Amino acid sequence: MEYKLLSCINSPSDVKSLNTEQLEKLCFEIRQKMLSTVSKNGGHLSSNLGAVELTVALHKVFDSPKDSIVFDVGHQCYAHKLITGRYSVFDTLRKKDGLSGFCRPNESEHDIFYSGHSSTSVSAGLGIATANKLLDSDGYTVTVIGDGSFTGGMVYEALNNGGRSNTKHIIILNDNKMSISENVGSFSKYLAVIRSKPGYYNLKASTERTLNRIPNVGKKISKKLYDLKTDIKNKLYAQSTFFEDLGYRYMGPIDGHDISVLVDALEAAKKVNAPVLLHVNTIKGKGYRFAEADPSRFHGVGPFELSTGKTQSSSDCFSDKLGEYLCKYAPENKKMCAITAAMGLGTGLECFRKSFSDRFFDVGIAEEHAVTIAGGLAKKGMLPVFAVYSTFFQRCYDQVIHDISLQKVKVIFAIDRAGFVGEDGETHNGLMDVPFLSTIPDIIIYSPCCYRSLEADINNAVNADTAAVAVRYPRGGQDGNVSVLQYDSVDFSTYGDKKADSCIVTYGRITSQAIRAVDRLSTAGINVLLISLNKIKPLPDAAVELMFNMKKVFFFEEGMRSGGIGEKTALCLLERGYKGSFSLTAVDDRFVSQATVAELLKEYGLDTEGIVKKVSEDF
Amino acid sequence: MEYKLLSCINSPSDVKSLNTEQLEKLCFEIRQKMLSTVSKNGGHLSSNLGAVELTVALHKVFDSPKDSIVFDVGHQCYAHKLITGRYSVFDTLRKKDGLSGFCRPNESEHDIFYSGHSSTSVSAGLGIATANKLLDSDGYTVTVIGDGSFTGGMVYEALNNGGRSNTKHIIILNDNKMSISENVGSFSKYLAVIRSKPGYYNLKASTERTLNRIPNVGKKISKKLYDLKTDIKNKLYAQSTFFEDLGYRYMGPIDGHDISVLVDALEAAKKVNAPVLLHVNTIKGKGYRFAEADPSRFHGVGPFELSTGKTQSSSDCFSDKLGEYLCKYAPENKKMCAITAAMGLGTGLECFRKSFSDRFFDVGIAEEHAVTIAGGLAKKGMLPVFAVYSTFFQRCYDQVIHDISLQKVKVIFAIDRAGFVGEDGETHNGLMDVPFLSTIPDIIIYSPCCYRSLEADINNAVNADTAAVAVRYPRGGQDGNVSVLQYDSVDFSTYGDKKADSCIVTYGRITSQAIRAVDRLSTAGINVLLISLNKIKPLPDAAVELMFNMKKVFFFEEGMRSGGIGEKTALCLLERGYKGSFSLTAVDDRFVSQATVAELLKEYGLDTEGIVKKVSEDF
Repeated sequence: MEYKLLSCINSPSDVKSLNTEQLEKLCFEIRQKMLSTVSKNGGHLSSNLGAVELTVALHKVFDSPKDSIVFDVGHQCYAHKLITGRYSVFDTLRKKDGLSGFCRPNESEHDIFYSGHSSTSVSAGLGIATANKLLDSDGYTVTVIGDGSFTGGMVYEALNNGGRSNTKHIIILNDNKMSISENVGSFSKYLAVIRSKPGYYNLKASTERTLNRIPNVGKKISKKLYDLKTDIKNKLYAQSTFFEDLGYRYMGPIDGHDISVLVDALEAAKKVNAPVLLHVNTIKGKGYRFAEADPSRFHGVGPFELSTGKTQSSSDCFSDKLGEYLCKYAPENKKMCAITAAMGLGTGLECFRKSFSDRFFDVGIAEEHAVTIAGGLAKKGMLPVFAVYSTFFQRCYDQVIHDISLQKVKVIFAIDRAGFVGEDGETHNGLMDVPFLSTIPDIIIYSPCCYRSLEADINNAVNADTAAVAVRYPRGGQDGNVSVLQYDSVDFSTYGDKKADSCIVTYGRITSQAIRAVDRLSTAGINVLLISLNKIKPLPDAAVELMFNMKKVFFFEEGMRSGGIGEKTALCLLERGYKGSFSLTAVDDRFVSQATVAELLKEYGLDTEGIVKKVSEDF
Repeated sequence: MEYKLLSCINSPSDVKSLNTEQLEKLCFEIRQKMLSTVSKNGGHLSSNLGAVELTVALHKVFDSPKDSIVFDVGHQCYAHKLITGRYSVFDTLRKKDGLSGFCRPNESEHDIFYSGHSSTSVSAGLGIATANKLLDSDGYTVTVIGDGSFTGGMVYEALNNGGRSNTKHIIILNDNKMSISENVGSFSKYLAVIRSKPGYYNLKASTERTLNRIPNVGKKISKKLYDLKTDIKNKLYAQSTFFEDLGYRYMGPIDGHDISVLVDALEAAKKVNAPVLLHVNTIKGKGYRFAEADPSRFHGVGPFELSTGKTQSSSDCFSDKLGEYLCKYAPENKKMCAITAAMGLGTGLECFRKSFSDRFFDVGIAEEHAVTIAGGLAKKGMLPVFAVYSTFFQRCYDQVIHDISLQKVKVIFAIDRAGFVGEDGETHNGLMDVPFLSTIPDIIIYSPCCYRSLEADINNAVNADTAAVAVRYPRGGQDGNVSVLQYDSVDFSTYGDKKADSCIVTYGRITSQAIRAVDRLSTAGINVLLISLNKIKPLPDAAVELMFNMKKVFFFEEGMRSGGIGEKTALCLLERGYKGSFSLTAVDDRFVSQATVAELLKEYGLDTEGIVKKVSEDF
């Protein structure tokens, strides 16, 4: 299709000259462009479709980048990208060296704050607004945050701080009744209550606008009018809102798909000289019937058929296997329960949810609480399994220390998306879990390279005596070639020449790359032994003993170098008096940008070719 | 004095037989015992004094350990300890092998959940209550939490989850208008509003009690009455409370120093078949006039003179020096601002607060938000310094990654209480910050051993180009003997025999121990070089080069072995082809219990004697 209006929008200033009718057309074109791109590249569709009018209205009313618009998570930033000069490169979305699916400041001056993890935008916005105040710089600060993100505790910490700070900060609550799946918890229930009350905002806004046209005097009256209105409202509703209790002027709820209403409301919010919360109702998936009907399926989606909404049927993967294995234990093991932080679908727990609903807990986007409630459950004899993406698990480092390890309770952490994750970029790779978990006393860590090991590790975890057990596995499925591994013990496997005096050591997914490398090296006359660790904390003694007797150890690790298993192995060998050579290939002190997993493995020397190259060069 | 009643309380059941007058006497004796012990041993005084009647009432009404009483942080658990069989050993409070100052399950079956970090008790309590429900075990679950802890986001995550879960969980909000110093933020302001409203609870409670005496029928009526009362209350107050918005039945506020009122209220709370929040007003420091007058000074306190309230005048320390150095930069560097998470006093920022109040931010007990607001401030050109205890810094690992390092903004982290902290035990030692910070790209870490280095490091941090800088230092002051160090560069110093072929490597506080060890070894004819690192990430190349040329490297580290600098040094040496010997003395995969710092250094082989022993044995 043609993008008559959109193709002419080179910066937000081009939006400002459009009238309402044109803005509505622009919204239509933005949705079409999103659909056409995401159906090819994959991406976060439903939230982005819901935030189109809101985003256009924001750029109509505010003046980015002088005014700062901070998007929470970034699942709502595609429209923003399309009208801030990135329409022409939008086809590169989520590709190597292309546009990020999230806000990324090094991509545009209109992307104020990196995002990818939830519930940070109120804090970041408050910081920006405070800096503006201190530096006497004008410029509004607007935070756009979904109701799902409101389940994260950081939001309340920020509201508690901001509500009393008298700093001008406009928070837009984009209420689509969803996080990734249906929003859970009492806050969401509460929103449903205030949503059902008659809006009182429209009248107020237009009156305020009229009054504000009278300079100086008008503003004072407007303030008084606001107070009066609040008073009327309090009497009318017979209650103050949650947000008012926390010190915010509450406006709304308004229709988030009506450009005029949005523009009016944003103009009014600008004029309130206090922290404001504007409550906007939107429909997740708006404008694409398949997404409106099933927004969760189109939350984060791979390529799909536009005309039918058919997504590619996914092949089996570690996440599904996790769910399957847990469901196998659950009927007999009545104490097993499963916890997710709003990621039931992604972590493969849907089957558990369906079959054992009384033992399934979706706590919202609240990883910290997820860990500590697991601690409480375990304390009384339950066996909680918290399934979580590696990158989000970073959120609850202290809770794993303080509320699990220190309590000496058994909790199983099923850590999904460990290692490179791919197209979602810097904020989504799972490269830190091994280093940070390794610092925690008594925790046992497994990193299976195949389903068979995953199943064995879950079994070990279920039957372990006391300590917490983490089992980490990558996004996607296993590589078939791992079946050639020889299971020396449940702790590690080997492949290749048992008599070789050099070895390749690795763990997890890239074991399959290493197997191919061993074959290729062997063809080239270089014989090495591959040691694939399954248990990585504590390090299996027998595996270290094997390495100790080698002349050369080549360690490959899909994770951070600092604090990783390679580093620990080096210390272990050196303290024993190892005199051979040792090299570690891992990710060194940097963030990993978006690309396919295959591209990333290649870039970091962790694919077959990289391993072959490293070993042959140093042999 | 004599403890006539208290000395006869061997378990909570002994409390149950006492009448109100006796309970009041018991409270008096408990306060005297606390005062006498804490004035000798130091401890958390003010919060404990405030929670005496509440605790006694809890044990009168509930049946511990069948009923679970979870204390947040544990600053309120001394009375609990005194009446759950620990009166006779209370003099060992906070001493090596003695009673912990916090709840510690391995000390008593009445201590349900380890505590020490704030805001975890609602999650833990909800977990316990949920397990009880799933396991059909009766037993109430009660969480006791202060209004200060309510500023931590985890509490809201838990309320959001618990308010809709229909799980019977009684939360006692112990409202003393304080966290460690005056409580900050809009939630605290909000509490002041509801505190000022007329209590409606008493009437309700007694009516409900009467009705509940009628079996079966009574309970149903009671439920109806509750709903009616809530309805009346809503009309009366013309608003619902924040807690009701989150799904909790709100009761209160009641007088937390009136045993009868407390007992009535707790009995009534027991009968509500839904999540309940009971709001209790208490006075921090209650019963000791010096603490009532200045509760912050007696929050956490060293030994003091009971009759005058005089605390020992503290000698200079790293915390004060941090404040002093920042105050030196702040007049010229208008962009510098300081952030604390309710620890202004402990982190030495009081002078900054007084002199530069517009650039000082106390965000409440909200470390996650503290880091992200710093990210926002830095984004707009401010230079935020977040001063935080090492152990609480664990809370914001993900925020340092996502909202600082990834944003490429400059923030200074002043990490206090790094290393052993002493009497506060497991939950307060700062042994993790080096490993977890080391995993984060681009962050520079300094670990000064003296004030002079601290000042230089702050200067480096202020003048650094872009990256975030962490400066970590121990509790207490410097050891004078560090003046003998030779400053080879700002990155590291040396002492001892420059021609030696063995070296001791360390960093931070224990440098002074190592200096003494070098002297003692030298007297014994063993010549070694001491390398004291100041910059620990990235590792100074010249220091590694020095080590590389040694035959033996002895590394001593006051921190976790896993992911520490010793481990990184080993990898670095091994990859360069080092063939000498290497040993690392550090804390290996365990929590460190309470004792004085000197006792801990000795226990872990990190004092002069331990270093001498290790080096002489392996020499």
